[in-house]
Amino acid sequence: MKNFVFLTSKDNKYLKYAAKLQKSASTRENDKMFVLEGFRIISDAYENNITFDCVFSSETYYAKYEDKVQRFFENSKNCFVVVDFLFEKICETTNPQGILAIANMPENAEIINKNGRYLALDNLSDPSNLGAISRTAEALGVSGIIITKNSCDPYSPKSLRASMGTLLRIPLFICDDIISVIKENNLRSFACVVDRGAQSITDISFTDGDVIIIGNEANGISEIVKELSDRKITIPMKGRAESLNAAQAAAIAAFELTK
Amino acid sequence: MKNFVFLTSKDNKYLKYAAKLQKSASTRENDKMFVLEGFRIISDAYENNITFDCVFSSETYYAKYEDKVQRFFENSKNCFVVVDFLFEKICETTNPQGILAIANMPENAEIINKNGRYLALDNLSDPSNLGAISRTAEALGVSGIIITKNSCDPYSPKSLRASMGTLLRIPLFICDDIISVIKENNLRSFACVVDRGAQSITDISFTDGDVIIIGNEANGISEIVKELSDRKITIPMKGRAESLNAAQAAAIAAFELTK
Repeated sequence: MKNFVFLTSKDNKYLKYAAKLQKSASTRENDKMFVLEGFRIISDAYENNITFDCVFSSETYYAKYEDKVQRFFENSKNCFVVVDFLFEKICETTNPQGILAIANMPENAEIINKNGRYLALDNLSDPSNLGAISRTAEALGVSGIIITKNSCDPYSPKSLRASMGTLLRIPLFICDDIISVIKENNLRSFACVVDRGAQSITDISFTDGDVIIIGNEANGISEIVKELSDRKITIPMKGRAESLNAAQAAAIAAFELTK
Repeated sequence: MKNFVFLTSKDNKYLKYAAKLQKSASTRENDKMFVLEGFRIISDAYENNITFDCVFSSETYYAKYEDKVQRFFENSKNCFVVVDFLFEKICETTNPQGILAIANMPENAEIINKNGRYLALDNLSDPSNLGAISRTAEALGVSGIIITKNSCDPYSPKSLRASMGTLLRIPLFICDDIISVIKENNLRSFACVVDRGAQSITDISFTDGDVIIIGNEANGISEIVKELSDRKITIPMKGRAESLNAAQAAAIAAFELTK
């Protein structure tokens, strides 16, 4: 059984750091740390060999689930049991379960598999969309997600929750520039655009080594990425809506890419 | 130019009613009224021949956009200009534009077109999902949406916002029981389920008169609807995620249904 520190004062640097990480994307990026809340997503992380810097259990939760908590403690540098009223202060969820971890951000997926099929997200801004796309990508068997640094943070509480933990499992490749990644790996790229003149996505026979690029919710794919991608494709639309929601477009793209 | 009443006191029954309608789904359902916030969605409603019971403009908005507001006033039984601090109290959005309407709920889409292709939503619970599905359905040319009464409210502020106004345009058929509607109209129904044994959605040649049924986010399609639908189909999954988000499944279903 692993020893832990019992925290009863809010003047603890680890508690303060957890609260800061919850709010600050720049702290997450600089320190390569992020927060996980709740048993299920912490288990997902544990099973995906993500290591913990701190694990916090509320006093009540520890009394009830000592075995479960000890399993996470074994994987953590620092271990804390926290009086309930303080524990709640570091949580983002209402009615927190009683278990929270600070985890080390995984490295980028090592190498793009040239036989894989990928989605690339160019400046996607909504964490709920990113979560939904990750969930769909994993379910349909997409090999991984290439995502630009100016997109929303895959390790924010919102993204992780919407992804149902899939963002911890699917290979993620965070980059400055999608096109460089695509060219370096000899992938074939398809920019998914709203343009009746572009080729219909249904006319393409996707093969291994293909990437479909999805753009920002309001502005679509950036001009330079559109310009430098191998082909422009579109999801044919018949109605009046100006375009599909980015997550919905990505679902259809992932489906066509992998079927 | 239409006359209006200038409101400066919060003790006005129309102001109180607007605030109540914003919060209460049962009031909306009983009174067949709902709230629209902002110029764009009110214009959408206006262009779709939805009539207004009340139109409220903030004092500042009226000073700036008298012509626009007067156009909506012409279509409304009651017309108000409201001092700014009171106007904000009836709004759900932060930084409201300054224009809000109480609208009469449209009747159900009159008749299901037997040559149409429909999505049916069985107890869908998330208004953001409903909004996204409506947007996709309209964009892809789905003929309309059949939705059970126990689903989330299509006329809630959240649903309307997420739909970008498309819920005011796409034919909606709100019903107690999906199967009766399907049988009465001789439609062919496909229950979209998570079941590796079901037929793949890619193996079906959809034709006019077909309906795909999508279920609740947590519980899927209810047993009785599954039982009584003509066929069970599935979106083939390769990964570990237990199922697709309902809106993502609906996007893929709508795409296959209409392509």
